[in-house]
Amino acid sequence: MKAYFTEVVDNQSKLLPRDVEIPKPQKDEILFKVKSTALNRGGFIVGGVMHGNPNKPSGTEAAGEIVGLGSDIKNYKIGDKIMGRVLGTDSGSFAEYALIKEYQTIKIPDSYSWEQAAAIPVSFLAAYDAVVTYGKLSKDQITLITSISSAIGASGLVISKILGAKVIGTSTSERKLEVLSSYGMDFGIRTPEQNLTKKLLDFSNGGINLVVNCLGGSVFNDAMNALSFKGIIVNVGYMDGMDNVPINIRKVHAQRYSIHGISNAFVTKDDIIKTVEGFKRDILPHLDTDNNKPIIDKVFHFDEIDQGREYMMNNGQIGKIVITL
Amino acid sequence: MKAYFTEVVDNQSKLLPRDVEIPKPQKDEILFKVKSTALNRGGFIVGGVMHGNPNKPSGTEAAGEIVGLGSDIKNYKIGDKIMGRVLGTDSGSFAEYALIKEYQTIKIPDSYSWEQAAAIPVSFLAAYDAVVTYGKLSKDQITLITSISSAIGASGLVISKILGAKVIGTSTSERKLEVLSSYGMDFGIRTPEQNLTKKLLDFSNGGINLVVNCLGGSVFNDAMNALSFKGIIVNVGYMDGMDNVPINIRKVHAQRYSIHGISNAFVTKDDIIKTVEGFKRDILPHLDTDNNKPIIDKVFHFDEIDQGREYMMNNGQIGKIVITL
Repeated sequence: MKAYFTEVVDNQSKLLPRDVEIPKPQKDEILFKVKSTALNRGGFIVGGVMHGNPNKPSGTEAAGEIVGLGSDIKNYKIGDKIMGRVLGTDSGSFAEYALIKEYQTIKIPDSYSWEQAAAIPVSFLAAYDAVVTYGKLSKDQITLITSISSAIGASGLVISKILGAKVIGTSTSERKLEVLSSYGMDFGIRTPEQNLTKKLLDFSNGGINLVVNCLGGSVFNDAMNALSFKGIIVNVGYMDGMDNVPINIRKVHAQRYSIHGISNAFVTKDDIIKTVEGFKRDILPHLDTDNNKPIIDKVFHFDEIDQGREYMMNNGQIGKIVITL
Repeated sequence: MKAYFTEVVDNQSKLLPRDVEIPKPQKDEILFKVKSTALNRGGFIVGGVMHGNPNKPSGTEAAGEIVGLGSDIKNYKIGDKIMGRVLGTDSGSFAEYALIKEYQTIKIPDSYSWEQAAAIPVSFLAAYDAVVTYGKLSKDQITLITSISSAIGASGLVISKILGAKVIGTSTSERKLEVLSSYGMDFGIRTPEQNLTKKLLDFSNGGINLVVNCLGGSVFNDAMNALSFKGIIVNVGYMDGMDNVPINIRKVHAQRYSIHGISNAFVTKDDIIKTVEGFKRDILPHLDTDNNKPIIDKVFHFDEIDQGREYMMNNGQIGKIVITL
């Protein structure tokens, strides 16, 4: 089969095709024919945490049709349509066939296209952890999502709206803010913004409940200064490269603030299961209306996957970049 | 009745007696004869958050016998023995009689002396929030308690041992560490300590699960560097006056750390009820063995309460300073 591997050429990551064997499922794994997969920026950052493995195809999520079952699999049959993260297996998702652990699988609702399904796993599960598991967002609360056009940011917007919350988003691009307003974002702020705290307090009428911080340290204290009592900050990304943030722990103490990090770099199987099951229960049933679909920026064909990677690295997209096979 | 009021004399707080009317209970309040009360440092810091009110007796917790019931009270009768925080009423606990909201009350187990009961409410409820509500400490985990000789620190030690955890404590005093070892503290570190992170990692064999930080910013990063995956830091006090702490949010992110503040300065009635009910359910039934009693440093008579305050402000005590009437 054809599979794409991440290779570093001239100090830049590239996706290059190879011809490899179709992988074989372990007893808790499922083999599926990939119909659609999606790109994640982290996989292309040279020296980054999620950098590809030269011995297996790149790619972390896909949607497809089951063609093989490990001996322990009881809940699926050949032909079932699934989506999910392929992490923890010997295969990647940038391939014609891929393996997936059963506990990572999500059945695809009938109304979904392959492209929509492939855009869900990585971003929506991370956004679920940020907004629901750690963020505890509830109806009529207000969340701030920094770098809201990022894939997790855009998924966080959709999940927040499903929960009945109001969403403030930040982006450096006026165009991106306009597009995301059409997806339900209630208030957009173009950054950098000198008076960010004041704008947040003005819009939220006294304080935001949750910050989903996809940007990093540069907005941390502006956001914290606009938090209401028992406010929560969930750190999701650090695109600005500002890792060190001076925080006032007396303020954290008096206001009962909580600060969390939710990277999946070292996450345990138990926590993965809780996230996948929680997402299926709380969000998936509400993710099939016109307003609440995953936000897809552009679809590339499998043969053009490296052009998709290049497009992604130029930071132009809003939401997901999907690859169709 | 005789009641003590906090007054500022020559820029120092003092407890001075006055003769005042016995207060009358509102419909959700209970009037009780104070048998024992306890001191809390926060109440004596000039300009501090919890500074006394010149119009009501000082003091935030007590144990005593019920002598009057508001019209809504159904679960208590005259003569019942209760303890609790008297916050939110028109009276203070440094008085012969005090009011208490029913939702703040805890029935005193038969085996308790009045002195032991009075030592419980403020410190154990705060320590419960730190160790259980936010800290999620479980059996065989390891907690670090900084300034462990403080009243909340010592209560955190007792609660952690009831839960079956191991406890590392820090203190500037070798004598205090020795005394607290006799109450079950597994490992003591005298601070300041240059190699604090290394000592913590050595003792915990790879990482501590929870930091109950009663000291403040000066030990924050040393403690964070010794946290295991999904470790939690709960900020309880800031005796060192170091409020601003530079934290590495990339590390918080990768390790799924959580940082919380748990001041009661603005806490809501719903959260108070959860804490009081949780403490009654999880800890109180196990708080009557020799090892697990509240740690009392010294008992003063009501007539000597201002000497007790002075003793407290000299930072010599381990655990609670109790006042008996």
